[in-house]
Amino acid sequence: MTRQLVCKKVTAISYETIQLPSGVLPCLTPMSEVAGGMSIQIGARYLEKENEGRGKLLGGVPGVRPADVVVVGGGIVGSNAAKIALGMGAHVTVIDINAERLRYIEDVMKGGVTTLISNYRNIAEAVKGADLVIGAVLLPGAKAPRLVTREMVETMQKGSVIVDVSIDQGGCIETARPTKQSSPIYNVNGVLHYCVTNMPGAVPRTSTFALSNATFPYAMKIVNMGFKKAFKIDTALALGLNTCEECVTCKPVAEAHGMSYVPFDL
Amino acid sequence: MTRQLVCKKVTAISYETIQLPSGVLPCLTPMSEVAGGMSIQIGARYLEKENEGRGKLLGGVPGVRPADVVVVGGGIVGSNAAKIALGMGAHVTVIDINAERLRYIEDVMKGGVTTLISNYRNIAEAVKGADLVIGAVLLPGAKAPRLVTREMVETMQKGSVIVDVSIDQGGCIETARPTKQSSPIYNVNGVLHYCVTNMPGAVPRTSTFALSNATFPYAMKIVNMGFKKAFKIDTALALGLNTCEECVTCKPVAEAHGMSYVPFDL
Amino acid sequence: MTRQLVCKKVTAISYETIQLPSGVLPCLTPMSEVAGGMSIQIGARYLEKENEGRGKLLGGVPGVRPADVVVVGGGIVGSNAAKIALGMGAHVTVIDINAERLRYIEDVMKGGVTTLISNYRNIAEAVKGADLVIGAVLLPGAKAPRLVTREMVETMQKGSVIVDVSIDQGGCIETARPTKQSSPIYNVNGVLHYCVTNMPGAVPRTSTFALSNATFPYAMKIVNMGFKKAFKIDTALALGLNTCEECVTCKPVAEAHGMSYVPFDL
Amino acid sequence: MTRQLVCKKVTAISYETIQLPSGVLPCLTPMSEVAGGMSIQIGARYLEKENEGRGKLLGGVPGVRPADVVVVGGGIVGSNAAKIALGMGAHVTVIDINAERLRYIEDVMKGGVTTLISNYRNIAEAVKGADLVIGAVLLPGAKAPRLVTREMVETMQKGSVIVDVSIDQGGCIETARPTKQSSPIYNVNGVLHYCVTNMPGAVPRTSTFALSNATFPYAMKIVNMGFKKAFKIDTALALGLNTCEECVTCKPVAEAHGMSYVPFDL
Amino acid sequence: MTRQLVCKKVTAISYETIQLPSGVLPCLTPMSEVAGGMSIQIGARYLEKENEGRGKLLGGVPGVRPADVVVVGGGIVGSNAAKIALGMGAHVTVIDINAERLRYIEDVMKGGVTTLISNYRNIAEAVKGADLVIGAVLLPGAKAPRLVTREMVETMQKGSVIVDVSIDQGGCIETARPTKQSSPIYNVNGVLHYCVTNMPGAVPRTSTFALSNATFPYAMKIVNMGFKKAFKIDTALALGLNTCEECVTCKPVAEAHGMSYVPFDL
Amino acid sequence: MTRQLVCKKVTAISYETIQLPSGVLPCLTPMSEVAGGMSIQIGARYLEKENEGRGKLLGGVPGVRPADVVVVGGGIVGSNAAKIALGMGAHVTVIDINAERLRYIEDVMKGGVTTLISNYRNIAEAVKGADLVIGAVLLPGAKAPRLVTREMVETMQKGSVIVDVSIDQGGCIETARPTKQSSPIYNVNGVLHYCVTNMPGAVPRTSTFALSNATFPYAMKIVNMGFKKAFKIDTALALGLNTCEECVTCKPVAEAHGMSYVPFDL
Repeated sequence: MTRQLVCKKVTAISYETIQLPSGVLPCLTPMSEVAGGMSIQIGARYLEKENEGRGKLLGGVPGVRPADVVVVGGGIVGSNAAKIALGMGAHVTVIDINAERLRYIEDVMKGGVTTLISNYRNIAEAVKGADLVIGAVLLPGAKAPRLVTREMVETMQKGSVIVDVSIDQGGCIETARPTKQSSPIYNVNGVLHYCVTNMPGAVPRTSTFALSNATFPYAMKIVNMGFKKAFKIDTALALGLNTCEECVTCKPVAEAHGMSYVPFDL
Repeated sequence: MTRQLVCKKVTAISYETIQLPSGVLPCLTPMSEVAGGMSIQIGARYLEKENEGRGKLLGGVPGVRPADVVVVGGGIVGSNAAKIALGMGAHVTVIDINAERLRYIEDVMKGGVTTLISNYRNIAEAVKGADLVIGAVLLPGAKAPRLVTREMVETMQKGSVIVDVSIDQGGCIETARPTKQSSPIYNVNGVLHYCVTNMPGAVPRTSTFALSNATFPYAMKIVNMGFKKAFKIDTALALGLNTCEECVTCKPVAEAHGMSYVPFDL
Repeated sequence: MTRQLVCKKVTAISYETIQLPSGVLPCLTPMSEVAGGMSIQIGARYLEKENEGRGKLLGGVPGVRPADVVVVGGGIVGSNAAKIALGMGAHVTVIDINAERLRYIEDVMKGGVTTLISNYRNIAEAVKGADLVIGAVLLPGAKAPRLVTREMVETMQKGSVIVDVSIDQGGCIETARPTKQSSPIYNVNGVLHYCVTNMPGAVPRTSTFALSNATFPYAMKIVNMGFKKAFKIDTALALGLNTCEECVTCKPVAEAHGMSYVPFDL
Repeated sequence: MTRQLVCKKVTAISYETIQLPSGVLPCLTPMSEVAGGMSIQIGARYLEKENEGRGKLLGGVPGVRPADVVVVGGGIVGSNAAKIALGMGAHVTVIDINAERLRYIEDVMKGGVTTLISNYRNIAEAVKGADLVIGAVLLPGAKAPRLVTREMVETMQKGSVIVDVSIDQGGCIETARPTKQSSPIYNVNGVLHYCVTNMPGAVPRTSTFALSNATFPYAMKIVNMGFKKAFKIDTALALGLNTCEECVTCKPVAEAHGMSYVPFDL
Repeated sequence: MTRQLVCKKVTAISYETIQLPSGVLPCLTPMSEVAGGMSIQIGARYLEKENEGRGKLLGGVPGVRPADVVVVGGGIVGSNAAKIALGMGAHVTVIDINAERLRYIEDVMKGGVTTLISNYRNIAEAVKGADLVIGAVLLPGAKAPRLVTREMVETMQKGSVIVDVSIDQGGCIETARPTKQSSPIYNVNGVLHYCVTNMPGAVPRTSTFALSNATFPYAMKIVNMGFKKAFKIDTALALGLNTCEECVTCKPVAEAHGMSYVPFDL
Repeated sequence: MTRQLVCKKVTAISYETIQLPSGVLPCLTPMSEVAGGMSIQIGARYLEKENEGRGKLLGGVPGVRPADVVVVGGGIVGSNAAKIALGMGAHVTVIDINAERLRYIEDVMKGGVTTLISNYRNIAEAVKGADLVIGAVLLPGAKAPRLVTREMVETMQKGSVIVDVSIDQGGCIETARPTKQSSPIYNVNGVLHYCVTNMPGAVPRTSTFALSNATFPYAMKIVNMGFKKAFKIDTALALGLNTCEECVTCKPVAEAHGMSYVPFDL
């Protein structure tokens, strides 16, 4: 595909390489927010009996224990998942490697969630008692680490549910493998796995607005200034440029395909 | 069935006629709580595109409008539905005929919901803009009033969703008719209707605990005291007695079947 | 003492028999509120290492699990204990036999606590994992039931803490026995027990104001109307009258001492 | 005035050019906070009937719809306005161009507000249904963009209210023009406009403390170190220096008046 | 007027005597809610300098102390006032004689307000430091007690504000006397007094809906059943009947005018 | 000790000099969080009568004023102290010199605390009325400033309590001097002072986990990469290196002991 873009002299910008100086990928963030929210409503669904789940209502009712939700990863996906799970009345644990992030999560969720630093023991203990585990560990531009092992999954009860949002990057749960909307779940030792690769696709109205919010300002810049000036002024946008006038202008893409890399400025 | 109970001299107690002096039906309340919570998670699911819904995420994301949820009825079902919808980030309106109840809802939900008194105009206006309408009007021992008319439903957008929890009592939405788990939804003018009659059945673990919490104390009383003494001491339980020693001891049941009514004391 | 009051013709009113038509004991409620709040701050103290506790901070810190607090009883004592424990960041479970009460607690504490109906299994499971157990079951005018058994206490970890606020009425925890401020705790199987009988005595400034708030209006009535008229007009106050003009005017007191009972009106 | 300062050899520091490395203007922020809070209480006032407003109570009452408040701009002014409006019980929408800012607002206001990305359609739709529109778009050192057009204002209902806090910088609402405390409002198509240029002047006690909090530390530095050393050590303060020893030391000021610019260091 | 109603054989129902068995006056409650909310926004306004107030913003800003608001009375008016004042960021104290009511207020306002039992000392101390005092003591069918004395008002600072919502019943503040919309305030020792007798009149849109919500169901009953049947079935409505077929059917009205009282049933 | 480390060729890393580019000391932060939380539960304890305190319950009860808690310093220690005090129902004031920090505290604590900018007058006024003062001013690598003077302490009431968490750095309260766990408090003019130097030592289970969370990742880096590579890659860790191969590699340590400083790279 890259070769075709070069042959056809296409000026190609890719969402996933537009990057702010802070490291944020502004055109991917909205999809992470949607996926985080979706993951809980999907988890709640598969906990229902008709879907072979444990038959537990996420928030319980007064007098009956709510479900235990463990969110592995406290970034955009994870914090959105935690917020929705908390709102539905579940008992929520968020695990992350970044103590500063956990501090912020406790500040804004008012101590309603339990936060744990990410290490083998904490993950193993939390997953063991969980009704629903959300895989939400995404490293920009890298394969997700397999933090939840097969052994941990085997300690979960029959009918509990795993939703691995990081499946697009290989998944952070060892037993996870990509599924499609048409056959979204499979069962490992009685634990349901939902690993659909494009979760935001289920709510296109929300996703489209969210994505347009992020991309529209870049489109306007290109339209108003012409793309050359836009790339010069906006360094985040410039990083998004992958091919231009028969050249590959994105270093990682060039390297991945053994093609020569030409910086945009040239 | 009633005749068989009488013939076989069965001492029959029914959940739905156990009634506290305050009018509360303690063995039905837990199921209303479960159904209220379930209604929102089901509504969220059918708003997804794959289910022909509008493709909207209930809580939206920062920068994108959340769904409008209208809950018709502010009792046990409605207030639980409102609480979960609010927790998921939706914009929630609760409509009820009882101003005192609306005051309590605003007090405990901290003004996060909009409350409206129940009348034709308020319902019509609210339903018109709604992405999700929850039918939650239940009158103890009576048919639910048809508060949401076919005309109102016709003003809703394609892909919006109705969940009528009151369908067990005939439904409070004119276009609602009972469905089953195996084929739970149907479409009226593009509006999805979910009217499964036993919604708590989807989460049996939670429902069973909830129901046992309510019924177990009555069972213990009967075991410990013998049923005669139990009925004498506990007037709520006594109201639950339907047949006993060849007699029908529940007046409405007797009347409904043209059988003679014998008060329990006799 | 009763005989002396009669001999000396004392008009004696006791706080604990003043009772509103609703069953509320208005002169005892404030002390229950104080005791509920105190119980958590005392529990937090004895969880410190220097007191032989587990060395756990009640609310944890971001990344470290908070303490598990189990409150047995959701009345005035229990709900105040739960509120303070929640405010300090603990993970809180409230157990009560009254589902309506649990509903109210979830409404006003916004789902921040887990509520469980009171039964053997729920109590046993909750106590097993608890760092701090608060005994808060008080039956007006009766001995507290022993809901937490010795076997349950034996499942608790070394250094965990029990505070039995109901010790004045015999305690709701089997291993509890009254202690004094001077030697407030003792150790059963490594579990610290704090069972001081007059906990509000530790914060006399707050307790005195709280108690005066409740009793002052009755005092004013007696002063303004004379006590006879006051008793006639205020039935709650009349129930508080124990002895008057050589008669015992409180039935339970008369029966307890084998003395004859004379109703106040006579 | 600038010439006089130069002639008289005044060392002049202006609040509005003191600027932190992060771009924040620390001596203007407190006034933005005051103005944000004021804007809602002023809006609430002009919604009253005696002021020709719609006669709507901002927060409604249980059973009656609250007012719709649209805050255009989510910076210091806008987020403070949103917080107060939310606290008064209104239905609040905040519109901003910065998705990160909207994320923070949703985090700390717990989803109580609807956030929308700033674009023509979102503004037009939100303004159309609004009872109160707050103009809160301030670009440091630039004219405010006219985001709310005359056409949008014409879609508003009679008796609705506009408060344009950005009027000091030209206003972000097309129909806004500066007014004075003595005649604060005017009417365009039945929509009340409040555009007083110095809103914090109405609450001088709060404003003075707020401003002193921000400026006092700079004053102390100058007093303690002498102004030369203070300017050298504190780059934010140095940017505040406008004239000094017959020179204009602030570039934009020099350019605006066609005078020669001399950097402070020289 | 009463005589004319009798002469003309008018069937007259008055809002203020319709009374539920619980003692609630359902047609007056909505106006109390509106007045409670209004009282704070009016108080905030008169604290502004241009109105001779102290020049304080109710909620302060970060780093600057907010205003102290004291609400005397914790009923419908008072709790609504407290809620709005809290939402605007003020430091709020609610004083009431009913400890149960204060418990509920603390439960639903999450400890955000300070509650004090009503007695001379508590009122005097609270009023002394207050920037804004709301008089919200209303006794159904009786003159409001003068709880805030002239001496207390004299301890308040210049520019502080009093809004006496109970002025319709004579006022609960000794220095209060009724004012009109056209000249709403007056000054006692530098303390501004706002005592307009019909505060909800300022927001007629909200008030009308609120009032209709309460009265419409009664109107419908009369229309549907005829007024005789309606009075028989609905005892609350029957209490509202003041004159009917040449008789005075409301005892207090009859007594007040020395006319003979004829019960409705006759 | 430094000399011994050099002689023995120890590679010594000290927690207190590991420093992130942002200035944060990641291995000290967790202890500040623990100390902040502890300070309130200790303060609550010494307010009890048996400890000579004022006999006040921190949160009061409905109808009785809660304690006034003043937290001097709004950093990690102070904000954690404020959060716990707020959760226990106290009236909380936080004083800090950084307006941005106060804004964040108001944002996440929802206006539940009063924030004041730090200056002599604000501190003096706040301390005067306080039941509990928390000293929480810590300057990284410097002696704490004496913000609360002896004169201010003398204005406090008998039985009020001071907990100076900054005592490890000399204390921010003039009357504070270090104490030990074995004799933790002393009395100045009737004001109790608690100034134990290692407060987190009381909850070792929480503190150990918290500290390990922070230090473990550094240990893993050293183990996995060898310490030389670890220091090169992680500049924060490199700043923690104090001695290495007979050299002092930390400038301040070298200067303090008059030893020669050798940068790590050499």
